Amino acid sequence: MSLALNKEELSQYLAQVFPQVHQDFVVEDLTEDTITMRLVVEDRHLRPGGTVSGPSMFALADVCVYSMVLARKGRQSLAVTTNSSMDFLRKPEGGTDLIAHCRLLKLGRSLAVGDVLMYSDGAEAPCARASMTYSLPPEGSAAAAFG
Amino acid sequence: MSLALNKEELSQYLAQVFPQVHQDFVVEDLTEDTITMRLVVEDRHLRPGGTVSGPSMFALADVCVYSMVLARKGRQSLAVTTNSSMDFLRKPEGGTDLIAHCRLLKLGRSLAVGDVLMYSDGAEAPCARASMTYSLPPEGSAAAAFG
Amino acid sequence: MSLALNKEELSQYLAQVFPQVHQDFVVEDLTEDTITMRLVVEDRHLRPGGTVSGPSMFALADVCVYSMVLARKGRQSLAVTTNSSMDFLRKPEGGTDLIAHCRLLKLGRSLAVGDVLMYSDGAEAPCARASMTYSLPPEGSAAAAFG
Amino acid sequence: MSLALNKEELSQYLAQVFPQVHQDFVVEDLTEDTITMRLVVEDRHLRPGGTVSGPSMFALADVCVYSMVLARKGRQSLAVTTNSSMDFLRKPEGGTDLIAHCRLLKLGRSLAVGDVLMYSDGAEAPCARASMTYSLPPEGSAAAAFG
Repeated sequence: MSLALNKEELSQYLAQVFPQVHQDFVVEDLTEDTITMRLVVEDRHLRPGGTVSGPSMFALADVCVYSMVLARKGRQSLAVTTNSSMDFLRKPEGGTDLIAHCRLLKLGRSLAVGDVLMYSDGAEAPCARASMTYSLPPEGSAAAAFG
Repeated sequence: MSLALNKEELSQYLAQVFPQVHQDFVVEDLTEDTITMRLVVEDRHLRPGGTVSGPSMFALADVCVYSMVLARKGRQSLAVTTNSSMDFLRKPEGGTDLIAHCRLLKLGRSLAVGDVLMYSDGAEAPCARASMTYSLPPEGSAAAAFG
Repeated sequence: MSLALNKEELSQYLAQVFPQVHQDFVVEDLTEDTITMRLVVEDRHLRPGGTVSGPSMFALADVCVYSMVLARKGRQSLAVTTNSSMDFLRKPEGGTDLIAHCRLLKLGRSLAVGDVLMYSDGAEAPCARASMTYSLPPEGSAAAAFG
Repeated sequence: MSLALNKEELSQYLAQVFPQVHQDFVVEDLTEDTITMRLVVEDRHLRPGGTVSGPSMFALADVCVYSMVLARKGRQSLAVTTNSSMDFLRKPEGGTDLIAHCRLLKLGRSLAVGDVLMYSDGAEAPCARASMTYSLPPEGSAAAAFG
C-alpha cells in the first residue's frame, strides 16, 4: 500500500479535472487509507433556513471517496459511483465549513468502498454519515463503466 | 388517503419556498401515492464528460419525495431528510432531462419513505434508483427536527 | 433478453445448491425481469413478539435478487452480494408468509442490481423495501469475488 | 451521557429477552458510545462454501446497534429497526468468529443511528460495514413503532 499521488499532486489534479468546483473542496490531510477534506461553504451550498443542502453534502462525500481512490490508483484511473448511502444526523451550521473524514475500506480489483463522517468545523458530533461504492473499470478499457 | 395539495397548488408552493431552484423541477403528474417530476437539465447540472452529476440526481430524488410528502400533508408540514440510498445504474444522457417516478411507500406518524426510479427522458432503462426517508416532527412543534 | 432458466429449472437448482433452506423459499412467478418469491414463515423466522425477524427479511431479499440473476445468467454463474439497503416500513404479521416482488434494474457486465418490495401475504401495504447489488466475477475466473 | 446498563447488566438483559440466540452474541466491550460484540460462529451461521452468511452478518449488526441503544436508554426502552445499509467487503473466514465494532452516531428524541465494522477475528481488514437506524417510540406509548 502506498500513495500514487501525494496531497499536493492530488490537489493539483482535482483543480485540473474539476475547474468549476475545485475551490469548494480543499484536501486537508491524506494518508494511505484516510483523507480529510473541507467544503468551503458559500451561499450556493445553502438551502432555505441557512443550513448546508443535502446535495452539497452528497457532493462532499462523493469527492472525498473519489479523491482517496485517485490518490491510491493515480491520475488516469477511472472510477464511477455505483452506490451511496447517507444518514443525515444533525443540522449543519449554515455559515460554517464542513469537514469530512473518509476511510478507504476496500480497494479491490473492480470495486472501491469508502465511508465518511462529516462535521460542521469545530463541532464534536457528526452532522452526516455516508458510504460510497465505486466501480473501477479494467485499466486500458474503453468500457462505459457503471459495471 | 387524499391529497392536501393538487398539482397546481404543489407547484406554486414549491416556487414560493425554493425560489432559486424551482424552475429546475417540474411536477409532471401527481396521484395520492405517486409523483412524476422532471429535472430540466442545464449546464450547471452536468459534470465533466457531459452527464448529469450525482448531486443533481440526489437533489431530484430528494425534491421528489419531499414534494410527495407536502402534497399529502399540506403546506405547513415539516419534513427533514434523515436517510438516503442510491444506486447509479447507467450513465444518464447529458443534454436530456431526467424524469423521476416516485412511489410513497409509507406516510407514518413520524416517518415517511418514498422510492424513486430515474430515466433520461425517453429511455427505457432507469439510470438511477433512490430511496429517501423523512422525519416528520410533531405538528406545532418547534423541534429542530432530525429526530 | 431471455431467461436461461425457467421457473421449474430455477426451483430445482435452488433446491440443489441450498439444501438446508430451499423449502423456505418458493418461486411463485418469473418473467425476464421480475420474480415473485414466497417466504414460508416458520417459527425459526420469528423474533420475540411474533413478527418476522429482520435477518429473515434480509435473507428473502437476498435470495430473491440472487435467483433473478441466476434465472438470467444460468446455473454456473457466480454472484456475490456487495451492497444492500433496506427500509423496514411496517410490522409484518407473525403467522403469515411474506411475498416479495423483485425487479431486476440492471444486469451489467460486472454488476447486477435488483429492488424488492415485501408484503405479508394478502396485505395491501408493503412491510419492507430492499435493494441489493451483486458483483458478477468474469466467467471462468476463479476469482474470490467481492470485487 | 452515561450508561443506563453496564456490560454485565446488558448481557443479562439480552439473555432474558433473546433466550434462543443470546449465546451467539457476546458483549466484549462497552463504553458510552461504542460497543464491541462477538458472533460465536456455528454451522447454522454458514452458507454453502463455508463463509458466514449475509443474514448472520445482518443479525450481528442489528443486535450490536440495538444493544448500544439499550445500554444507553435502559431495559424498558423500545427501539425498532427502520433502515439498514450494508457493504460486504471481503469474504469472512468460515470457522472464525466475527467481531463487530459499533459507534453510536446519534441518540435523538425519536431516532438512533449507529455504524458497524465487522472483522473475522484476528483479521486486519473489515469484511463488512453496516449502518442501522432505529425509531424510538415515545416512552410510555403503546405505539406499534415503525414510525
